[in-house]
Amino acid sequence: MEKPLAVVLVSGGMDSLVALALANQTHRLALLHFNYGQISEGKELKAFNRIAEFYRAEYKLLVDLDYLKKIGGTSLIDQSLEIPSGLSNQIPTTYVPFRNAQLVSVGVSWGEVVGAEVVFIGAVEEDSAGYPDCRREFYTTFNRLIELGTRPTTHIEIKVPLIGMKKGEIAKLGIGLKAPFELSWSCYRGGPKACGRCDSCLRRLRAFQEAGYPDPLEYDVSSPRITTA
Amino acid sequence: MEKPLAVVLVSGGMDSLVALALANQTHRLALLHFNYGQISEGKELKAFNRIAEFYRAEYKLLVDLDYLKKIGGTSLIDQSLEIPSGLSNQIPTTYVPFRNAQLVSVGVSWGEVVGAEVVFIGAVEEDSAGYPDCRREFYTTFNRLIELGTRPTTHIEIKVPLIGMKKGEIAKLGIGLKAPFELSWSCYRGGPKACGRCDSCLRRLRAFQEAGYPDPLEYDVSSPRITTA
Repeated sequence: MEKPLAVVLVSGGMDSLVALALANQTHRLALLHFNYGQISEGKELKAFNRIAEFYRAEYKLLVDLDYLKKIGGTSLIDQSLEIPSGLSNQIPTTYVPFRNAQLVSVGVSWGEVVGAEVVFIGAVEEDSAGYPDCRREFYTTFNRLIELGTRPTTHIEIKVPLIGMKKGEIAKLGIGLKAPFELSWSCYRGGPKACGRCDSCLRRLRAFQEAGYPDPLEYDVSSPRITTA
Repeated sequence: MEKPLAVVLVSGGMDSLVALALANQTHRLALLHFNYGQISEGKELKAFNRIAEFYRAEYKLLVDLDYLKKIGGTSLIDQSLEIPSGLSNQIPTTYVPFRNAQLVSVGVSWGEVVGAEVVFIGAVEEDSAGYPDCRREFYTTFNRLIELGTRPTTHIEIKVPLIGMKKGEIAKLGIGLKAPFELSWSCYRGGPKACGRCDSCLRRLRAFQEAGYPDPLEYDVSSPRITTA
């Protein structure tokens, strides 16, 4: 019997890559990537395309959310806000207001059209820098919303298989699934090599450190590396 | 004391106009309009701009959801699907999968940035052609989602003041609030005059008939007019 179809949100980063590696075990793949004017978009899109090729995705959709630039309010888009270096438990300036609700809604919309039964998202609660829309309950509630807001014949469920995991466990899981981490991109800055200093790089480096494996990505060696969290 | 700020979703049609007329009683206005490649967009955008001017809106935002064209699956965008004439209780081909979730999410996102406390939407349950995302429960659940998915300091509530009303009551309410119906546009087709035959025109004509007032909009007189529902 043919595997069912899954939409997977693929940013190009390590979490979504591992969610994709999991989805690939059980589902045919429809991969969705967003461009919302983030500074690192060029690198992320390249990562997305290479990852999609690696997994021989059946469908691929690139969605422009240009309007997020107009809405602003986040340092991932607005170059006048500083991208923080180092780790913090505060909601950082890289937070895009209610962003995940928008991304997930698009995933469900596309899922309804292409006939997917699930939408995989690599959201992580504990290590996700305090973004309010990365919590398990957010997705539980979202599933209720899908039930209410789609055709009676449509049954799409959001799956967040990494939500309760620690970053080190995610790295380990991905290594076990042979996820091509060398194709992924996590750095918020869009330089030729990952900066090794932004929140996202630090979390990734710590993840591989915890997993006890080397990160196959190249980092800017002139950057100070992580010491302790 | 200064009135609080409200985001109002304004399509240019009669329902959102009446929701706006209500919001205007109690709130300062941030008006939001969407272009998603719908056939009638030119007329709708013109209606939006004239309505925004009429109400002297403090903020105005035009959001392009171009990607909905790529997702397709609806006759409002895909010219190869036929726009149905006449009324029906089936979910029509004009349904955009999970569209309102996307529109509302954008409204909340913008609301968080501009500091709004409510998002007004002119959704109508009973007369809304069976769209699954026009039900009260959908919005109740959405409010829970906002609470979970925004900053702890953000409190934005979706208001759907027309949700339980009949179309005739909405027309009456708008007339009482002196809503400029002559500036609005409801027709799914984008002709020089409203066609008077599509689902949306028929519902509007019936609404004014029920309210016992003439619709100030011009209709294509060569079109057959509504007889009985």
